[in-house]
Amino acid sequence: MAKHTRPKLIINCKHIRENYAYLKSYVSPCIASCVVKDNAYGLGIREIGQVLYQAGCRVFFVAYGCEGAQLRKVAPDAEIYVLQGYGHEESAHFQRNNLRPVLPTVQDALRYFESPRNRLTPAIQVETGLNRLGVHLREISAVRHLPFSLILSHLACADEPHHSLNTHQLEEFKKFKEFFPNTPFSLSASDGVFLGRAYHFDMVRLGAALYGINTKPYAEKPVKNCITLVAPILQIKTVKAGESVGYGATYTLSEKRKIATVSIGYGDGIFRSFSPTGILHLIHNNRSYPAPIVGRVSMDNITCDVSNIPEAILNQAEYMTLIDDSYDLDTFGQACNTIGYEVLSSIGHGTRYIRQYID
Amino acid sequence: MAKHTRPKLIINCKHIRENYAYLKSYVSPCIASCVVKDNAYGLGIREIGQVLYQAGCRVFFVAYGCEGAQLRKVAPDAEIYVLQGYGHEESAHFQRNNLRPVLPTVQDALRYFESPRNRLTPAIQVETGLNRLGVHLREISAVRHLPFSLILSHLACADEPHHSLNTHQLEEFKKFKEFFPNTPFSLSASDGVFLGRAYHFDMVRLGAALYGINTKPYAEKPVKNCITLVAPILQIKTVKAGESVGYGATYTLSEKRKIATVSIGYGDGIFRSFSPTGILHLIHNNRSYPAPIVGRVSMDNITCDVSNIPEAILNQAEYMTLIDDSYDLDTFGQACNTIGYEVLSSIGHGTRYIRQYID
Repeated sequence: MAKHTRPKLIINCKHIRENYAYLKSYVSPCIASCVVKDNAYGLGIREIGQVLYQAGCRVFFVAYGCEGAQLRKVAPDAEIYVLQGYGHEESAHFQRNNLRPVLPTVQDALRYFESPRNRLTPAIQVETGLNRLGVHLREISAVRHLPFSLILSHLACADEPHHSLNTHQLEEFKKFKEFFPNTPFSLSASDGVFLGRAYHFDMVRLGAALYGINTKPYAEKPVKNCITLVAPILQIKTVKAGESVGYGATYTLSEKRKIATVSIGYGDGIFRSFSPTGILHLIHNNRSYPAPIVGRVSMDNITCDVSNIPEAILNQAEYMTLIDDSYDLDTFGQACNTIGYEVLSSIGHGTRYIRQYID
Repeated sequence: MAKHTRPKLIINCKHIRENYAYLKSYVSPCIASCVVKDNAYGLGIREIGQVLYQAGCRVFFVAYGCEGAQLRKVAPDAEIYVLQGYGHEESAHFQRNNLRPVLPTVQDALRYFESPRNRLTPAIQVETGLNRLGVHLREISAVRHLPFSLILSHLACADEPHHSLNTHQLEEFKKFKEFFPNTPFSLSASDGVFLGRAYHFDMVRLGAALYGINTKPYAEKPVKNCITLVAPILQIKTVKAGESVGYGATYTLSEKRKIATVSIGYGDGIFRSFSPTGILHLIHNNRSYPAPIVGRVSMDNITCDVSNIPEAILNQAEYMTLIDDSYDLDTFGQACNTIGYEVLSSIGHGTRYIRQYID
């Protein structure tokens, strides 16, 4: 019986700091800013913001003003940019917390500078080929007279180094230089870091890679995994051949098997699509014993086949492991037919974890 | 320009109350308990717990002790059952908050009653064919002498009324009657309510159906949708034929189109798998204008094709709608190749929504 029935999310702050140090030195002398939007990808904006601030980061990106206000408490003198811009009722909030919006349109930029309340110089996002947010080159002259503190764009295919859109976006981005010759430029997020120095400009924006996601899937992973996710075993039972396990009776046993039910599910951000290819592991004396998922992931539970794990080891076990340094976010994402980014964000939003920050 | 850049989640408490009243009267005189685990499926355990308590509910189910403690504040004299049982370090917490564990194994039951600290009578879960949690019939005599307050099991295929496992589980469940002739029995959750009175026993456990999820997919939906989800439009741009939209450049335009970028993404629990079949809507004067997603869902943004929406309407628009009474959780779930339950839980965990409770 476990001490607690809640699953446990262990966040390795040392690894996050090491990832930051590695990436910062890799891009030096370019500024290494940190992206802590989405509650630091779910890991806790205050906790992770503090780790990165103490590691020397002084430029941060968040998505919303509310995230910026949380971050401000642990990064008192940092520059904080807000990627989604700002709404017209949010000016006071931005000023109070010294937040700089990243403005996506000409109209937003003109309106921002019209208001004398808006003291801090903002960034402007420019369109180079992602076709998501940003001012197109053909419109840029309308705002060229404004004192932006940063010109920013974002790559669409940075995880595919040979994709032709990369060089296209690079060339498009350079065309904005003539309009803002003395303003810092930033094109690359984690993915772009490894495309070469030409993509770094004055500042890179480190996000996913800080948190151990492999943004260089075509080569050896350059960063360390930062999370361990374990779930208490609530019950181990023997199920007979011909019986099914889980909702919809989608999984029928062809022979008698030993099934463990663990306390975690899609209510904790574990996608239903983790079944049927996902694998849990029992870690014992540094050895890892795989236990494939059987049946569907339900809201609070996952069932897995532990028949191949020696009885003596199983009897002592408290937890099954879902994510660790060997079975990391990227591997987990593949099993769910998605990417590590979405897995981290989804798990990170879980409200029922016992969270431990280790260093 | 929107007032705020954050997406908005509107929760209709009146509909939740009406769903409860309808289901309660449908199962009467059987007890209609409410399942508010997973933070009331993400909608807020305090807010929704209070609505249901005021509507007369006096028996609740949560998954964890921490959820029970939150609920206790708004349901002072209700019976609160904890579905995942309890860990051996959680006894004091359970006692302090008057929580009753639902025990899954013989060992858990014997241990619970061994400790004089554990005052409240617990429930026991019994295995009838889901093969997830619960004591098998062949083991039950070991605990038949214990004073449980509830005997509980759970159906695997209740959303498929003709599935043979339903009658099998029903018959298996009845076999436990001989061991506990005077204890209340509960087999059905929302799905089981519509399988007929034989499945109701003494108490049904209403969860998904309360929140507007159709647990009767084979027939007309018996309950009302309870959530509306809208996202601010940050930018509308014209994209030329031959250009791509979004990450991976997976979507290339065959002709010039108008693309809107809205402020919501997988960081808000909108699955990446919502692309490419998902549709957003612009609601204007009670008319709904569809805008299909183009390109991938990213962490903070979704791009959709608004070319077919009249210019005059588009120019006034502040929000695109993702979920409402017409395009509900079930429809959304189908577009993501999953179920409404997972969509609701995922969205409900979003931390960046402006949440409004309406009545």
